[in-house]
Amino acid sequence: MAGASVTPTPLLKDELDIVIPTIRNLDFLEMWRPFFQPYHLIIVQDGDPLKTINVPEGFDYELYNRNDINRILGPKASCISFKDSACRCFGYMVSKKKYIYTIDDDCFVAKDPSGKDINALEQHIKNLLCPSTPHFFNTLYDPYREGADFVRGYPFSMREGAATAVSHGLWLNIPDYDAPTQLVKPRERNTRYVDAVMTIPKGTLFPMCGMNLAFDRELIGPAMYFGLMGDGQPIGRYDDMWAGWCIKVICDHLGLGVKTGLPYIWHSKASNPFVNLKKEYKGIYWQEEIIPFFQSATLPKDCTSVQQCYLELSKQVKEKLSAVDPYFTKLADAMVTWIEAWDELNPTGEGLAKPSISNGPGK
Amino acid sequence: MAGASVTPTPLLKDELDIVIPTIRNLDFLEMWRPFFQPYHLIIVQDGDPLKTINVPEGFDYELYNRNDINRILGPKASCISFKDSACRCFGYMVSKKKYIYTIDDDCFVAKDPSGKDINALEQHIKNLLCPSTPHFFNTLYDPYREGADFVRGYPFSMREGAATAVSHGLWLNIPDYDAPTQLVKPRERNTRYVDAVMTIPKGTLFPMCGMNLAFDRELIGPAMYFGLMGDGQPIGRYDDMWAGWCIKVICDHLGLGVKTGLPYIWHSKASNPFVNLKKEYKGIYWQEEIIPFFQSATLPKDCTSVQQCYLELSKQVKEKLSAVDPYFTKLADAMVTWIEAWDELNPTGEGLAKPSISNGPGK
Repeated sequence: MAGASVTPTPLLKDELDIVIPTIRNLDFLEMWRPFFQPYHLIIVQDGDPLKTINVPEGFDYELYNRNDINRILGPKASCISFKDSACRCFGYMVSKKKYIYTIDDDCFVAKDPSGKDINALEQHIKNLLCPSTPHFFNTLYDPYREGADFVRGYPFSMREGAATAVSHGLWLNIPDYDAPTQLVKPRERNTRYVDAVMTIPKGTLFPMCGMNLAFDRELIGPAMYFGLMGDGQPIGRYDDMWAGWCIKVICDHLGLGVKTGLPYIWHSKASNPFVNLKKEYKGIYWQEEIIPFFQSATLPKDCTSVQQCYLELSKQVKEKLSAVDPYFTKLADAMVTWIEAWDELNPTGEGLAKPSISNGPGK
Repeated sequence: MAGASVTPTPLLKDELDIVIPTIRNLDFLEMWRPFFQPYHLIIVQDGDPLKTINVPEGFDYELYNRNDINRILGPKASCISFKDSACRCFGYMVSKKKYIYTIDDDCFVAKDPSGKDINALEQHIKNLLCPSTPHFFNTLYDPYREGADFVRGYPFSMREGAATAVSHGLWLNIPDYDAPTQLVKPRERNTRYVDAVMTIPKGTLFPMCGMNLAFDRELIGPAMYFGLMGDGQPIGRYDDMWAGWCIKVICDHLGLGVKTGLPYIWHSKASNPFVNLKKEYKGIYWQEEIIPFFQSATLPKDCTSVQQCYLELSKQVKEKLSAVDPYFTKLADAMVTWIEAWDELNPTGEGLAKPSISNGPGK
């Protein structure tokens, strides 16, 4: 069973940061200790910067609160959300590693059907190191997985696949529902373990959840902006959705892959549906226009870097979505600020440099 | 567990035919008796028409051999393949029912992870009666299934889904591999039961296998042509692939859904890879041009019936694929003959009449 064993030497130990946005003590890390302890954590403290966040002993971490963000980014700190877990994307920006895994602090270790603890991080790493298949659908799911392959009729020229930029993991127990669905089905729990990883085909958008998400910073980092949410903004809970739409359009343009499926985490606590409704309600009707916008968005051929793609997308957002609400003008500007801040913290030639696209180890 | 229980009254008993192409006695039906016996079978006997095919007692069936096909279709019988399981599509044409399930005679009842026999037909019917979601990806798979729903960020305007035209089931034990993969991995068996049904997104092609396949004749029947294979033709084993490319382009155009995943059948016997290679090798290089052709194929807006779409597609095949091989000129002509024969056997006003598109019962 994939993702269910602890390897003796942790994969990518020095090439991956775990980013955790939080407002509370990080006791949840105790359960993750066997899997996370070898890795470096970047903790983004939201809310009151004077509050002390306790991190269990033995973890290697750096912690940023709002004062740190303001100090490091100066006026550009305006692009980082406050009082919303969207602030996590600051962690993506200050990381110097090739890979990021981000997880919410109400997510615990899930068990696979055999009862074994799922090493979510290990499965994400496998997903990222192994190619995706965005250009044709494989009916037996991930063709690179042991015991599987490409089925009859799958073009041989496409079997090398594409480099994987994003690995989107799922949730057992509390499913990631919107407020209306939470209200209608307060007791629904996700108990079905679907033993599959799949590539989301080119040209198809998906609702990306930030709860259990890994990505390759070099390939897609600058597009992984979680937008303007929370304090002073008209919406919340669309931070990961926004990032998901943007990264998918850009991955499709650049020929990169996005996977979803395994690994599962155990999502412990449903957030308050009434509070969520207040945060979401504008998004719920805005998305009816935003999604067609992203579905039809195309990027010019001369956009060859993620930054170029993202700036082009910000232009299109301003042009086409500002009519939906003035908020999108502000958001489009923040997208530009984000790229400026990203490039400032990640100058070319250091760290992120040029995207060195590779297909991973394959099979 | 979906698809694993026998309902007291069989679903759609009088609205579904089971189509089986064969050259041998149908002993395999014994294992399917609890699930298939209430339904009507259409057996398409391939090869020598003088051979007698034994059908186990108690099944309600009609059987057509080559002489019958020639008698019924006259000169138009040229569009029905001989000495290839592609002949099964004759059964789709003579059926008067709304739904078709087709299965190969080397496919047996599989067991779900709890050890229970899987009623494949019942799961296909559920798949067909329940909408698809081709326009946006749902990360928790089929949102209409019990215990699941649309996740946060899924546009509410798209939650009605689309009518489902095709349900593509999978195979445990012998996977549906091409000859090169069979040769390289002779011992690979599919042992993973993935407990999911998913919609193949709009704009994405897939390799459709005819081994375990159900569809709605009214919605897509006239496009379910399995092409010219076998005797006198330069290729084999691309019958279902051809149908899969055609139906997907047409379903996308007409706003219909195509699902894949559950149910599994137990595929008992790997076919001979050397024989398969001989049948497939032209297809293996032709598909490198055929698939881009179908990926970029678009149908004009005024094609509103399946027949119109299919005739338009036949024109494009002739125009664009004849350069690959003269075979495609012949195939394009056979596509036209197929539609003529279909319309002759299914005159408007009777049986198939106009497609009455509905979203099914929903949830």
